Amino acid sequence: MSPKITTELLKQLRQVMKSPKYVQEPVQAYIVPSGDAHQSEYIAPCDCRRAFISGFDGSAGTAIVTEQYAAMWTDGRYFLQAAHQMDSNWTLMKMGLKDTPTQEDWLVSVLPEGSKVGVDPFIIPADQWKRMSKVLRSAGHDLVPVKENLIDTIWTDCPQRPCKPLITLDLSYTGVSWRDKIVALRSKMAERKVLWFVVTALDEVAWLFNLRGSDVEYNPVFFAYAIIGMNTIRLFIDGDRMMDPAVREHLELDSTLEPEFKIQVLPYGSILSELQAVCAGLSPKEKVWLSDKASYALTEAIPKAYRYLTPYTPICIAKAVKNPLEREGMRRAHIKDAVALCELFNWLEKEVPKGTVTEIIAADKAEEFRSQQQDFVELSFATISSTGPNGAIIHYKPVPETNRTLSVNEIYLLDSGAQYKDGTTDVTRTMHFGTPSAYEKECFTYVLKGHIAVSAAIFPNGTKGHLLDSFARSALWDCGLDYLHGTGHGVGSFLNVHEGPCGISYKTFADEPLEAGMIVSDEPGYYEDGSFGIRIENVVLVIPAETKYNFKNRGSLTFEPLTLVPIQTKMIDVNLLTQKECNWVNDYHQKCREVIGAELERQGRHEALQWLIRETEPLGRVQ
Amino acid sequence: MSPKITTELLKQLRQVMKSPKYVQEPVQAYIVPSGDAHQSEYIAPCDCRRAFISGFDGSAGTAIVTEQYAAMWTDGRYFLQAAHQMDSNWTLMKMGLKDTPTQEDWLVSVLPEGSKVGVDPFIIPADQWKRMSKVLRSAGHDLVPVKENLIDTIWTDCPQRPCKPLITLDLSYTGVSWRDKIVALRSKMAERKVLWFVVTALDEVAWLFNLRGSDVEYNPVFFAYAIIGMNTIRLFIDGDRMMDPAVREHLELDSTLEPEFKIQVLPYGSILSELQAVCAGLSPKEKVWLSDKASYALTEAIPKAYRYLTPYTPICIAKAVKNPLEREGMRRAHIKDAVALCELFNWLEKEVPKGTVTEIIAADKAEEFRSQQQDFVELSFATISSTGPNGAIIHYKPVPETNRTLSVNEIYLLDSGAQYKDGTTDVTRTMHFGTPSAYEKECFTYVLKGHIAVSAAIFPNGTKGHLLDSFARSALWDCGLDYLHGTGHGVGSFLNVHEGPCGISYKTFADEPLEAGMIVSDEPGYYEDGSFGIRIENVVLVIPAETKYNFKNRGSLTFEPLTLVPIQTKMIDVNLLTQKECNWVNDYHQKCREVIGAELERQGRHEALQWLIRETEPLGRVQ
Repeated sequence: MSPKITTELLKQLRQVMKSPKYVQEPVQAYIVPSGDAHQSEYIAPCDCRRAFISGFDGSAGTAIVTEQYAAMWTDGRYFLQAAHQMDSNWTLMKMGLKDTPTQEDWLVSVLPEGSKVGVDPFIIPADQWKRMSKVLRSAGHDLVPVKENLIDTIWTDCPQRPCKPLITLDLSYTGVSWRDKIVALRSKMAERKVLWFVVTALDEVAWLFNLRGSDVEYNPVFFAYAIIGMNTIRLFIDGDRMMDPAVREHLELDSTLEPEFKIQVLPYGSILSELQAVCAGLSPKEKVWLSDKASYALTEAIPKAYRYLTPYTPICIAKAVKNPLEREGMRRAHIKDAVALCELFNWLEKEVPKGTVTEIIAADKAEEFRSQQQDFVELSFATISSTGPNGAIIHYKPVPETNRTLSVNEIYLLDSGAQYKDGTTDVTRTMHFGTPSAYEKECFTYVLKGHIAVSAAIFPNGTKGHLLDSFARSALWDCGLDYLHGTGHGVGSFLNVHEGPCGISYKTFADEPLEAGMIVSDEPGYYEDGSFGIRIENVVLVIPAETKYNFKNRGSLTFEPLTLVPIQTKMIDVNLLTQKECNWVNDYHQKCREVIGAELERQGRHEALQWLIRETEPLGRVQ
Repeated sequence: MSPKITTELLKQLRQVMKSPKYVQEPVQAYIVPSGDAHQSEYIAPCDCRRAFISGFDGSAGTAIVTEQYAAMWTDGRYFLQAAHQMDSNWTLMKMGLKDTPTQEDWLVSVLPEGSKVGVDPFIIPADQWKRMSKVLRSAGHDLVPVKENLIDTIWTDCPQRPCKPLITLDLSYTGVSWRDKIVALRSKMAERKVLWFVVTALDEVAWLFNLRGSDVEYNPVFFAYAIIGMNTIRLFIDGDRMMDPAVREHLELDSTLEPEFKIQVLPYGSILSELQAVCAGLSPKEKVWLSDKASYALTEAIPKAYRYLTPYTPICIAKAVKNPLEREGMRRAHIKDAVALCELFNWLEKEVPKGTVTEIIAADKAEEFRSQQQDFVELSFATISSTGPNGAIIHYKPVPETNRTLSVNEIYLLDSGAQYKDGTTDVTRTMHFGTPSAYEKECFTYVLKGHIAVSAAIFPNGTKGHLLDSFARSALWDCGLDYLHGTGHGVGSFLNVHEGPCGISYKTFADEPLEAGMIVSDEPGYYEDGSFGIRIENVVLVIPAETKYNFKNRGSLTFEPLTLVPIQTKMIDVNLLTQKECNWVNDYHQKCREVIGAELERQGRHEALQWLIRETEPLGRVQ
């Protein structure tokens, strides 16, 4: 990977930062956040402005360019990648390290007195604006909205905003009609005495209307906003997508239905003016509900007295708790996914010793096997197919420059998943196709112990996921090992592979308590820079638990793995497991054998079935 | 407990709420918070204004009086007590229940349009003012500071503010001179480019100047403020305490020393005007550092542009990390404390079967034994001496009406501690003087497993205490049990028994990472309403840990128990312990026997020594 040469681009950006054509007053610093106008994690090519200006294309990072400096903040997952992709114009700011300043503090330390710091008000979330603005103001600077995106002004070959056809999902997939979802939303609004609700996150729009798209790679969403009133529905969406008869029928656009379910379709770009018009008609005590992570532009459009901001919207919370049909869909998707992986690992076991399988070939093969499964739509994220030292790059994606050949001498880590019409998958397995070293097995076993500790944890109703994070680390900690990422994230149902409002992480964020029906990943790891990476990831469903005393009827929860792919026993040092952990592995493998075995049988995949049977032999505990 | 009759008092308060003598404009509501001007947890009698006006004297509660209503907000610990202590003039607002309005929302619902809500600006913390003021303002009301405390105007027999003599602590106790503490503080100020620091918390003033007092029960503090400049020191303190030659010498008040260490002593009441004078002389970019929990009055005295607010002050953080001499002192204090408890438990073992020992007698006896130890000053909090069902009341304090006799049929829980000149202790032991039931042993053993899980935890440098909280709960959770309080709090060194900025709690608060030298409690519990309470509490010191791989030189931490009091083995179901846990108990008891045994021997306390030896017999693991 050679870094992107950004000298000329930075020069151009610094020019427009002073150009009266684009800014009312010159800005001494310009912030280029990662996101799009919907605060999406995965973004369309036209929104990859930070990657364009810096070369660093990891999923998280904020660039700030001043007259003198160009700095990039990113987290532990991306330290190596960012260092590789950026040229010497850029300074890497390693978030999470003690001596790394925050963006605000850094700005204060480098800016001349009374500076203006510009940012696109549609891209920066309101809560972040508030935090930065406060610090800057108290140091005598000003954070200012710059209407025209300055990166766009210098990005001559910027791709067009995608506008792909929509997929309608019927009740057999969603379990609840969009009308019932609107009714439920309005009842939440009534509870909070709020008259309007603005849907800004793309997956929330998609979920609410039971529609999917493909405007953003890996995430089946489409560019749209919505404003829901107590009697009106406004959907902001571009293109001729609303001409599709299936979509028209699904949304009942041509039916004579009750006025409160009549959807008014408006251009995507008219959201700001429409929202302003809605607000102009408000009388005191009439509130508009918005995520506090919505863009500064939309938040500011609502006069302060009318704003009702919450960290999580009622849609986000409802979406996280999967209904019975969604759970069934997720189960089906994970069975199909496991079939594909059994095929893949069986194939790798035969092919790797030949020395012809590269990381890219393995990733492509994984996609090929997945695409053979029913209702397969696309991958759910860029496959992390990494061997040896590449495995230590947590969010590695093989490219020709880094592409390594799998061998019988190195650990192979595959973190991959897919979108099926019935569910979203995300699974990591770490394999050795030769003989792992004692140290590799030791580390793998600690990671496995952490994985089991979370998966088998029992906890009272109302517990937040972050309280479970250290269970995943305890075995590693005991030996002085750790990993620098969270343990789990929420997973959508044929939606984003990362979704809120729950998760399992040491980072204190306002996570909502875990509830039966929520789905999260359980993925501890261990990474030895320059040598190998280990991660064991299952997607797990939150289910009620049976306990002896049941928390005085408060009830309790635990997890059920949806992912049913063997965990390589060759990598396990059985002596490091307790009897309980040993039993967990054996029970898990028994279930893989039964459920996935039956499906492999049904699909006539006999060789993969033999592989599965071999890989699910019970562990014999060596005393 | 008969309620306090408050009709006349409320009438008087409502009169002064309208009296031009005290308020510029009439206030339609007056808020009486719990705290004092230093946001202390424990307060002096003269600051018990809420108890005076309402009769309710629990440790937490806020009263609001309007023309028509008098309402009291308190939490679950105090619902019963508040209901008993208040007459029918008062409405109890049960915090934590779903239908209970917040103070702000309630005010908005009862006040006539455009009302003024008064509060003493010295008593309300700035962050709370901000929150309330925002809600009131958006509903058209105003929160206004009332200079003269309106309760004080009607409290004719209000006790005087205490003004007791000071204790000076020499280097053998503090390890660092007050001059070196000032130097360190100024260097932190320089780092943050701050020119002034206002010390508002009483324990911070005491720590900074190596002085102690006894103005507040249980907390060896004295009423004072300080303003530290880069070249000046202002100490605000009343009385003739500064006439004491020992104090004068300690503070070098009469020496000709460098001007930057010259302490200017000013009256306690002049803090506001002095701070205003300091601020009047500020030029732009000159900042004043203050805790964000400081009073609204002091915060407002600093023009917004000059304010530098942080949740924890550098004194709070420095104070939490005990230096080698303070650690030694804490060790000594805990040895003496253990001697007292061995005497007590030996005595109880003989006396309880006679049926003559009540909770109050046991508490008094504990104090008596402690007071025999060198450098004993006072208790560090009100002793929780509780047997049977009283043990389930987490913050129980025996009073004649509730006083129960200890017996061989009930569990006895003693949570107690003392202030010694060399350290502060806080220890809980749960004992049975007869034969515990299988269920009691089971619960006790889960609590013990949680206690050990925290105490023996190894974690990387930089870990925050809240990440360890669920280790304490895991064994309980597995069986469907839990406890509704945090697992640990910071402990001062001959200072407050509860101090920030670290702790171990599921409540997400902004705790600072644990560091070697910090001291916290480890106190999981289990409470069966109406039957019994179990808690096992040690004070533990954060120390560096030895691990196999040492977190890639990031380093790691663990805990060393300072408390060395036997944990009753009779209460342990050995079959529920792992071998590691069994070893932990045996090692711990071995250490108790060695360290406390030697001290009991030295003090000639032979009977207690025999008790200690009996109680520290190793557990034999039953397989």
